[in-house]
Amino acid sequence: MADEFQRIAELSRRFATDAPQVLLGIGDDAALLGTGSATVLSVDACVEGVHFERAFIELPALGRRALEAALSDVAAMGARPLGCLCALILPDTLGDDELYALADGYAQAAREAGAPVVGGNLARGRELSITSTVVGEPGARTLTRSGATVGEHVFVTGQLGAAALGLSLLKAGKPELGPELVERWRAPRARLAEGASLCAHASAAIDVSDGLLQDLGHLCRASGVGVELWANLVPRPANHDALARTLGLDGLSLALSGGEDYELVFTQAAAEPPAGVGATRIGRVVEPGMGVQVFEADGKRLPVDAQGYRHFSR
Amino acid sequence: MADEFQRIAELSRRFATDAPQVLLGIGDDAALLGTGSATVLSVDACVEGVHFERAFIELPALGRRALEAALSDVAAMGARPLGCLCALILPDTLGDDELYALADGYAQAAREAGAPVVGGNLARGRELSITSTVVGEPGARTLTRSGATVGEHVFVTGQLGAAALGLSLLKAGKPELGPELVERWRAPRARLAEGASLCAHASAAIDVSDGLLQDLGHLCRASGVGVELWANLVPRPANHDALARTLGLDGLSLALSGGEDYELVFTQAAAEPPAGVGATRIGRVVEPGMGVQVFEADGKRLPVDAQGYRHFSR
Repeated sequence: MADEFQRIAELSRRFATDAPQVLLGIGDDAALLGTGSATVLSVDACVEGVHFERAFIELPALGRRALEAALSDVAAMGARPLGCLCALILPDTLGDDELYALADGYAQAAREAGAPVVGGNLARGRELSITSTVVGEPGARTLTRSGATVGEHVFVTGQLGAAALGLSLLKAGKPELGPELVERWRAPRARLAEGASLCAHASAAIDVSDGLLQDLGHLCRASGVGVELWANLVPRPANHDALARTLGLDGLSLALSGGEDYELVFTQAAAEPPAGVGATRIGRVVEPGMGVQVFEADGKRLPVDAQGYRHFSR
Repeated sequence: MADEFQRIAELSRRFATDAPQVLLGIGDDAALLGTGSATVLSVDACVEGVHFERAFIELPALGRRALEAALSDVAAMGARPLGCLCALILPDTLGDDELYALADGYAQAAREAGAPVVGGNLARGRELSITSTVVGEPGARTLTRSGATVGEHVFVTGQLGAAALGLSLLKAGKPELGPELVERWRAPRARLAEGASLCAHASAAIDVSDGLLQDLGHLCRASGVGVELWANLVPRPANHDALARTLGLDGLSLALSGGEDYELVFTQAAAEPPAGVGATRIGRVVEPGMGVQVFEADGKRLPVDAQGYRHFSR
């Protein structure tokens, strides 16, 4: 069976279009569509048993989390969300109060993002899923994945690996070892303000949903460049590596491939992040050919591949 | 447990907003969103075991059907679809060739509607579902559910009951008794051209997805009116009632409550349908109070309720 990206490539070919209203089609974090002004569009689904277990997250937090993941794609375009659509597939076992609790969290996230829920759909099904469409307007510039050029610097907002480590703690039944990490998995926030600020500075951007290596790999292919990262610069929470070790996990690997942090990785010519954007320089853009390479501080190249979060049993 | 419409009412309350970009929010066939020009938005999901059985429909037809159902909401607004997003939840048992066959039918429907697929999402799950977001631009006027006034006439495009009877034939294992009816269930077409033509004429419109009584009930509540229908005028295919009888079903009941025909029901002052729109006058708009009432030719009132397609075991 083809993997997810082979399937997406094959579907993209079948969905190919030269319709003039398609300003940016399949292949970036969001699409741009319009006849006059452009509308930014993205859709993301959150499926029980795949993206979450209900034992690990309260329903209001689940609602928020589903929407934040979808908002993150719009943030990565430097766009402003205007509204969203919430399509729910609901098992008969989900009671009214549970549905409304989920909706309360979703609604609060939507309001905070300035993207009220303007529509949706309810359907019955065997497993709970939440599919969010986010609609936005472009920022001062649209940040695609394809603008990086050789010699630029690579930055990432916030910290990486925290969500994956938090989820690992939940799976290990030890959330008390790192409640703040569990919260990073349970309650991510889309980097909307940072994305808007990046419009004036970044050459390319993508959000880290599947893992830094995998998502940066998409940016490399779209831009026709390679990237060199320095492992010791990849920002992770204090005590992250030690805590990972207590679970038998590698902290760096979680930070490189863990996913679900919903931070933004971006490229720009300047060596300092834009004012007001909390971001860390983690590497540079190089000639294409090797994709994403990771080096240790002593110059030794780490054996990584770009499979991202699929390293982890999900 | 609350029924679907109680749940929608409860969710709508939680999702309420006065954000200025929400030109039309939850509660009609589609939403209108925008800061300058308006974008028409609607989302619809199609779930295996609920909306279809794979034994009853080939995958390309399923792809088309899922999108046409979503396009129908945009048609009911008199809007023009510009593009769509296709979010798929895929069980591991669905092979690549099956996925691509589904996508081929979806892509063809999208192209024919002038609404290319500009984005989407792939997720794993236990049951196959297809969630389509359709994005469009308003027509000359936006046809909401809320414009009907007392004294106007009620029309419906095409014929009703055909899809429900076709599905009943499939369930009974007798598709050969009415292959053209089976096709009406398998391959509906959204009434996009008719919807666009209605902008200049209709006062209110809705598409018939859940059944005439139920959908017309929505229009009545939104418009604050009642409707009187004449059963003998409700258009159904030749031989429809006789064929229904061979399955032990009532042809009129299928036409009133069957759903999934994706025809448009609309109200207008003129007693003839607009030029170029194939539609039948089936009733008139009356004072509110009784919702939708159905009369036989001899003036006898039929005992109906507005439960629509939920009459049928689905």
